[in-house]
Parts: sequence; structure tokens; C-alpha cells
Amino acid sequence: MPKIITLLTDFGLKDHYVASMKGVILDIYPYAVIVDISHDVPKYSIRTAAFILKCAYKYFPRGTIHVVVVDPGVGTQRRPIVVKTTNYYFVGPDNGVLMMAAQEDKIKEVYMIENPEFMRREISYTFHGRDIFAPTAAYLARGYSVKQVGRRVEDYIVPSFSRAKIKNKSIEGEVVHIDDFGNVITNISADDLKLLDIEIREKVLVEIGGKELKLHLVKSFGYAEKGEMVLIIDSENLLEISINLGNAAEELKVDIGDQVCIRLRS
Amino acid sequence: MPKIITLLTDFGLKDHYVASMKGVILDIYPYAVIVDISHDVPKYSIRTAAFILKCAYKYFPRGTIHVVVVDPGVGTQRRPIVVKTTNYYFVGPDNGVLMMAAQEDKIKEVYMIENPEFMRREISYTFHGRDIFAPTAAYLARGYSVKQVGRRVEDYIVPSFSRAKIKNKSIEGEVVHIDDFGNVITNISADDLKLLDIEIREKVLVEIGGKELKLHLVKSFGYAEKGEMVLIIDSENLLEISINLGNAAEELKVDIGDQVCIRLRS
Amino acid sequence: MPKIITLLTDFGLKDHYVASMKGVILDIYPYAVIVDISHDVPKYSIRTAAFILKCAYKYFPRGTIHVVVVDPGVGTQRRPIVVKTTNYYFVGPDNGVLMMAAQEDKIKEVYMIENPEFMRREISYTFHGRDIFAPTAAYLARGYSVKQVGRRVEDYIVPSFSRAKIKNKSIEGEVVHIDDFGNVITNISADDLKLLDIEIREKVLVEIGGKELKLHLVKSFGYAEKGEMVLIIDSENLLEISINLGNAAEELKVDIGDQVCIRLRS
Repeated sequence: MPKIITLLTDFGLKDHYVASMKGVILDIYPYAVIVDISHDVPKYSIRTAAFILKCAYKYFPRGTIHVVVVDPGVGTQRRPIVVKTTNYYFVGPDNGVLMMAAQEDKIKEVYMIENPEFMRREISYTFHGRDIFAPTAAYLARGYSVKQVGRRVEDYIVPSFSRAKIKNKSIEGEVVHIDDFGNVITNISADDLKLLDIEIREKVLVEIGGKELKLHLVKSFGYAEKGEMVLIIDSENLLEISINLGNAAEELKVDIGDQVCIRLRS
Repeated sequence: MPKIITLLTDFGLKDHYVASMKGVILDIYPYAVIVDISHDVPKYSIRTAAFILKCAYKYFPRGTIHVVVVDPGVGTQRRPIVVKTTNYYFVGPDNGVLMMAAQEDKIKEVYMIENPEFMRREISYTFHGRDIFAPTAAYLARGYSVKQVGRRVEDYIVPSFSRAKIKNKSIEGEVVHIDDFGNVITNISADDLKLLDIEIREKVLVEIGGKELKLHLVKSFGYAEKGEMVLIIDSENLLEISINLGNAAEELKVDIGDQVCIRLRS
Repeated sequence: MPKIITLLTDFGLKDHYVASMKGVILDIYPYAVIVDISHDVPKYSIRTAAFILKCAYKYFPRGTIHVVVVDPGVGTQRRPIVVKTTNYYFVGPDNGVLMMAAQEDKIKEVYMIENPEFMRREISYTFHGRDIFAPTAAYLARGYSVKQVGRRVEDYIVPSFSRAKIKNKSIEGEVVHIDDFGNVITNISADDLKLLDIEIREKVLVEIGGKELKLHLVKSFGYAEKGEMVLIIDSENLLEISINLGNAAEELKVDIGDQVCIRLRS
């Protein structure tokens, strides 16, 4: 069974960085199947990388090794870690970027990468993706035990990811992602909406970006008129604001972190 | 022999969407070889996706499964289909996007995807790429018969792709693609030009973007002066307008759909 | 052991060009493992492609076949070549783009690709990436001998790559790359700095873009204040100018080819 290693970084694709990591992996374990999750995470955005990882990791086969390098603290004292969860391995810096996904899949053990056998012989100060994270992933794919990478740690960093708050007749959440279509994705889930008894096809009051809007909750883009702004439960069960064949984020002029409030109709 | 699955979408590469599709494929059939055709099709542009697919599909080994997800009607009544042609499988929405390529390779049978065994257990309304098209492709790669995906359909959508019109001493066509170099690609073929007796090195009258130009037809960019605008028969046997080491589309200010007329010299 | 073929081009990823090359490779040798180095080299920039290749090639397993298509002279008399070095094969146009990497790994033999068995049957004038370079790489991966591609040549093109000049108390170099983070990478190496006795943590005088700056040489970005401009020895042992969590190239308004001068403190 081929071993899969995924890569998620903020490196972009114009330089040699991603390719160097792939070279290192294939040099250690030529049978690895490498899959890019994305390399266009906004520079240094731990928050966006954590979100993208959480959306993607679970569709991969059990045993997949997910490597994330969004690492503003590279070369300092921040630790390189491997997180073993119920079904996966996560490899990356101890800055919280792995934890939204890892917690969902249930963290079993966290190890600090300190065994030089899991690293390149010379380690640069600025590119641990190539010199530590890629080789560690490759050795895990090759069958080395995660217990060998280094000592277990318990004091790993877990950022507090924002959650929607359910009040009496409203839900207060925030924008967690804006996708390439301009869909505005919130941290309000389909389950949250059910608590307010909101159903598909209903018109809902939405406060966002200083505006108050009445929007239909529809099943999919195609149920809206061309150019109509609607609410949708997206493919990750999150509420998103979309414009059919248009760009909702541009229209609303909102950004990640902006507040969203959903109210019952009256 | 490895089974190849190609992906062509308008998803962009910054989000998790493409990776989720790859995860689903590898979870069903870990030996699949996945190749990206492009994920930067202009949003919702069935026309551009159809063109890119037609240019790329035929270079892949016989039996390759081409998946296309440019799907503004996702979640509505539009059907998911598999097209079996002489040499390939094409998987995607029944909105015409598959048909320019499929017709060229000769359509054998078209099936509607309706057997839940070819889908993920839960199907979102907004992401059939992940929930229907990716798993169908993976099961076909794994060896399931296309006859099992669902009933045969005959009333699939075939858009009328624009063709160049050959008149007495002229050819009227249109811009079908502008590539990343700014080359302006038309639907006028090398064969069309032969009907007008136009040969390499000749100067030809071209009307485009409200301008009338006299351009040399040359074999390749390198035969033009630096910055010279020329006509070229491109690698798909289509007439294109190029500037050596420059960007013809920007210079001409033309876009997809604009008319192009080629005339004999007088 | 899987055979790896890497691709480095200026084609961009929106069109069918890269996918067509991959299709051709897999059609000839379906077991090839294809890795993208980058397709976002600035159009026609032999210099940038040569630099990216030099940074990435060496991390791949011995025997990897590196294909580079930055080829403004396609279709003219410029020759297609294969360079056999100590550990790798390099396939591309004879315009110097392969040579910065090939020289570092020591050139053993250079062959002109002229045997039609290594090409597609019909060869376009504008897309040798697909019709000559991809098939040649695939046949080499399949085990054909490089000696069969064509006659040996000795008069291949080797551009003179700029080198830093070490003077009495200064080093004069130039900007060779600006990466996606805005890091300004120079051709001044860590060894050059040692010749001037400059050590980590020292403040150094830098002349660049008409400005004179006093910058700390630090081990990594994380050792600088947020927004501080620093000097770093990067992961390829080259001196680079960086801003922690910022974009140095935008701040300095510099471009590739601009001069950089490093002086001792006085």
C-alpha cells in the first residue's frame, strides 16, 4: 500500500522550496506518494493553514502523513513536532498550526523531533521544511516508528480557535476563511443553525460588515438567481455567504476575523 | 499498469478543494496516479475548460480517466455523467464541458452517475467534485465497470462550439483562448489556412479588435524580431497571434469571443 | 526503484501545456514519478530558471532526470540537448539554462537530441517541451541509453553567471533572486562573508538600491524584531536581505540584477 505524504505551506510555487522538500522525501523514500494540499496559504497565517488542514486531512487514507510548514518562528527555540492522532500523523512546528485538525481526529501522542536520524545532516536555520519536517515524514513513511523521533511532550501549543456563540435567538460567529470563489465561510455550523430552528429555504437576518441583510438559506448556488446573495451550508457543514456566479467577499468587503451574526426573522 | 486520473477544475489552488478530491481518490484506490491538468480555469467558464481539456486529453495513455469540475449548476438537477469514448473516460457534470474533447475522440456511451456505490456516503449540495466525480473516477480506476454507474443517457448536453467560417477570400473565426504568454489563440486551423492558399512566410491581413494588421505567418516565435507581432500555427494546429518575447493579448486588448478575420493580401 | 522526472518551465499553470508534457511522459513510461519544480519562472527568464534549478536539483535521488523548458528560441536552430552529470540528467534547450546546475554537479557528457526515436512523431515548431524534451526524458527513464539520443557536442552554451567580487574590505555582488516572501537573495555566499571575517550577530554596512543600511546578520527571521530588516545566510548558503514577517524586496524597491555591496563596519 503506497504511503501518502501531504504538504501544506505558505511557500508559494514560484521558488524551489516545495520542490526541494519533495526531493528530500523521494531521496529517503522513493515510493512515497506526495500530494500538495496548498502552498498558497497567506504568508505566516497559522490560522488559515490550520483551517485548510482541518478541511482536507480527513479525506486521505488512514496512515497518511500530513506535513505543514507555516513557520514564522523557524530557527528559534520553537520545537518541531510529530502529532500521532487516531488515524494520521501530523508533522510541523509546535505553533498550533496542526492542532485544529489533530484535536478533531483525537490526539494520541505528541513527540518532539530531536533524533538527528530523522533530519538532514546539515540543518539550515531558515528551512526546516526541507531539513527536518520533510525527512521526518519520509522516515515515518519508510516505516520508522514515531517513538524514535524524540521525547514525548505534553506542553505543546494549542491555540484557542474561535467558536460561534449561541444566544437566545441569535448566533454570533466570525469569518474563518474566504475561498477562491469569494465565498465567505464562517465558524457557524449546520448544527448551530438547527438549534435556532432555521431550515433550508427560510429567509434569515444576517449582520456582517456593518450591513444587515435578509438572505435565503438555500441548498446550493444553483438555487439562487444569477448574482443573488444567499446562505449555504457548505461541504464542511459550515455556514457560508455566497453569490451565485459572483464574489460575495468582494461585494461585502469582509475579511477573515470579521464578525457575523445570524438572527431569527423577527 | 498504473491507472491515471486527471483533474481539471476552476477551484484554484489556495483552498482545500483539490486536495480533498485527491484524498478521496487515494482512499478508494491508493495506486491511482493523479495528474492536474489545470485548476485555474476562469470561474464557471465551461468554454475555457472544454478548450483546455481538448488540448490536453489526447496526450495521456489509453484508459486515462479525465475528471472535469467546472460546475455552476452543482446541487441542482443537472446530471453527473461518465462519457466513454474510443480511448478514454470523461467524468463530470452534464453541462457540455466534456463534449469538445469527447466528440473528437468519438463518444461511445454516456452514463448518468446514480449508483450510490460510486459516490461518498454523504453527498454535499455544493461539492460534487469530492462526493461524486472523484469517487466515480477512483472506482473506474479500481476496475469497476462503467456500465454499473447508472443508466445510459442519450439526451446529454452538447454545446455548439464556434467554428471558423471559410468565405471566398477570407476566414472568419474568433478568439478561443488567451494563454499565459498572452498568445491569442483562434478557432482557425492550419487546414482552414491551406484552403486560402496561405503559406508560411506570407504576409496576411488580419482584422482583430477593431484593428487591421499585416502580419507575417512564421514557423515559430524565434523567427520574429523581438517585439514583432506575428501569426503562428500553434502546437494544436490552430492559428495564433503572438508577439516574440511579448504579450499579444495585452497589446491588442482582445478577449475570448472576439472576432478574428483573415484575408488574402488584396 | 521509481524513476523521477522533474519539470521546470515558464509555462504557468493555467493552460494545458504542463499537463500535455506529463501526458506524453506517462504515455511512454507510465511508471515515471513526475515532480514539478516550478512553472512560474518569469517568462523567458533563463537566468531565473537556472538559479531555481541549481537550488533544487541536488535534493533529488541520484539518476533523477531534470527537464527545463524556458526556451525563447524554440523552433529555431538552437539545439535540444541532454547533459549527463555526475549524478543526474538534465534535458532542455542549449541556451545555458541547464548549466549553472550541471556545472556544479560536474558535466560528464553533452548530447544533442536528434534521434527521432526520442521524439514525438510530429514535432510542432512551438512546443518542444511536449514533442522533444518530455519524450526524451521519458525514454531515459524507461532505460534507453543517453548515448542513443544523438551525437556528442562540445560547443554547448555556458553563460557567464555573475559572481561576487571580493575586494579589500568589501564584497560586490548582485541580486540573483527575489522569492515569494520578498527575500532578496544575492550571489554573495557564506564563504565570501567569512573572507571578510563577518560573523553572525554583527552589524554590517549594506549598499543596495541607492540606500546605505546597517543591518544585523542573524541566524534566522525569528531572531529579528517584527518588521526589522536583517541579513541572513539562507538555506543555499547565500546572503539574503529579509524583513521578519515582511517583504524586503518591496521595501527596498530592488530587482534581479541590482548591485549589492557589503562593507566592513569601517
